[in-house]
Amino acid sequence: MEREIIELFMKHLRKQGDLPLGDDAGALRLGDEWLVATNDMLVKNTDVPNIMTPEQVGFKAVTMNVSDVAAMGARPIGFLFSLGVPMGIDWGYIEGVARGIGEALEFYGVPVLSADTNEVDDLIIDGIALGTTKRLLRRSGAKPGDLVCVTGDIGRALSGLMIYLNDLDIDRKTREILYEKLLEPKARVKEGIELSKYANSAIDISDGLSKGLHLLAEMSGVRIEIDGENLPIWKEVHEVASIINANPIEIALASGEEFELLFTIPPQNLEELSSDFTVIGTVHKGAGVFITASGKRLKMPLLGWEHFRRP
Amino acid sequence: MEREIIELFMKHLRKQGDLPLGDDAGALRLGDEWLVATNDMLVKNTDVPNIMTPEQVGFKAVTMNVSDVAAMGARPIGFLFSLGVPMGIDWGYIEGVARGIGEALEFYGVPVLSADTNEVDDLIIDGIALGTTKRLLRRSGAKPGDLVCVTGDIGRALSGLMIYLNDLDIDRKTREILYEKLLEPKARVKEGIELSKYANSAIDISDGLSKGLHLLAEMSGVRIEIDGENLPIWKEVHEVASIINANPIEIALASGEEFELLFTIPPQNLEELSSDFTVIGTVHKGAGVFITASGKRLKMPLLGWEHFRRP
Repeated sequence: MEREIIELFMKHLRKQGDLPLGDDAGALRLGDEWLVATNDMLVKNTDVPNIMTPEQVGFKAVTMNVSDVAAMGARPIGFLFSLGVPMGIDWGYIEGVARGIGEALEFYGVPVLSADTNEVDDLIIDGIALGTTKRLLRRSGAKPGDLVCVTGDIGRALSGLMIYLNDLDIDRKTREILYEKLLEPKARVKEGIELSKYANSAIDISDGLSKGLHLLAEMSGVRIEIDGENLPIWKEVHEVASIINANPIEIALASGEEFELLFTIPPQNLEELSSDFTVIGTVHKGAGVFITASGKRLKMPLLGWEHFRRP
Repeated sequence: MEREIIELFMKHLRKQGDLPLGDDAGALRLGDEWLVATNDMLVKNTDVPNIMTPEQVGFKAVTMNVSDVAAMGARPIGFLFSLGVPMGIDWGYIEGVARGIGEALEFYGVPVLSADTNEVDDLIIDGIALGTTKRLLRRSGAKPGDLVCVTGDIGRALSGLMIYLNDLDIDRKTREILYEKLLEPKARVKEGIELSKYANSAIDISDGLSKGLHLLAEMSGVRIEIDGENLPIWKEVHEVASIINANPIEIALASGEEFELLFTIPPQNLEELSSDFTVIGTVHKGAGVFITASGKRLKMPLLGWEHFRRP
């Protein structure tokens, strides 16, 4: 439904910013800088697993917006939010959300500029983040010859969700490591600022690595080749994969809301980066996304959380 | 409830922008300008009278945010929104809202920077507006010696609402004039930009003139004297007042969401203004808001829509 509604709106919104819609955030020229702005609504009933504490919910509402700013190569400079609160909600819960938002703002070093609250039927946090950068990273900037890289590791969020949804029996330490990424993901702010100087394109992994790769290839008009053996997958993800009899690479491709940055960069710029990242592929002329694993090259499937959901 | 929730949040949000919370919008220094940002959530079930068309709902979601930017003396430069859409909503309605948002953006000359949509139980439009200005207008800037002024006219929105709620019998022409302000209010953008050069303080009338005056007096640490005979009240408001046996001045003080700008300005700057406005009072040392009408001086009551609501 989301895509259809946005398309309907786009028909009527002819007046767009200096950057057409379609990136992680919108942007406007302001003097010799870009002002980046993004908003993302978190709806408790649909977006929040029950195991999440209210503090984690508040923290995540900030993270998901700050991450979009980071994906544009911008430094976050301000946060705003609207809160929709149902009648008769538990005040302890609301205070937990407030504490989580406050902790996240301290963590990212971002001030709150405005807050609004209304009575609605669901608990809703609509977060808005603003940022600035001299050089914008876009989804359409990947160039043949670039290396494809990803920050951090991938697959833990979905592995954690599968433990929770399927009530898997797994040792406490492993569960903690996976739940950390599921419940307390962090935006790659420092990395985004650094990448703005050296990378050609970027996107954050909010809908999964495979969707991110497809968007980059499509919007840049290039072909992407991924080396499946090189994906930064932790051993805890392999553990869950073997319990549920799934392929750890597929889990890594489908895992969403990890807020890692997927980016492409000319090889000669690689040594400038101080961030923690892994080279996972290459950019070429052409179209499509392909992955080579166990000696086989395949067209990469478009995977999402839903492919691993069990009734 | 709103005030208590915001207070709870403020306890946990220590990191604020270059302007403490409490104005129509937040603000940050950005080079030699101020970046102004504001957000306001419109909830259909509670904020929208049934007679409003979806186009008017969309237009108003933009107006209420652009108005907050104008009240800070800033030129609006971008709009963002999150849409909460219930399952099974009428697509024609959604398209009307889209058309209204599009019309408003053309009207105010503001580009859309980002849009997000989610499934929720109520129809919600959370709008965000950004603006810039060299000189910020704040609620706390009123100075003894200033004149108190208001743009346009006041009282029509509440008069229109009373016609609707009480099903008053009134001629079509009068109804149209009143409904125009109730259903299609416009933000005072051009006026706000002009006022940024000459005024000392400003606030938009979203919660009624009397609340606006009290906020100005309180936040500026001054006393305000209003001349009740000078309020810009149209004859159609007098007409409704006589039918429902109410005081037209009280209607004008209580009428909300008119989006007129209330401002204070040194007398010598008055002749610089090309905008349509009325001088309604004066600023003095001291505290409180007083109104003189029919030869009597009274402490101004804090009136809102609810004082005129009938079961």
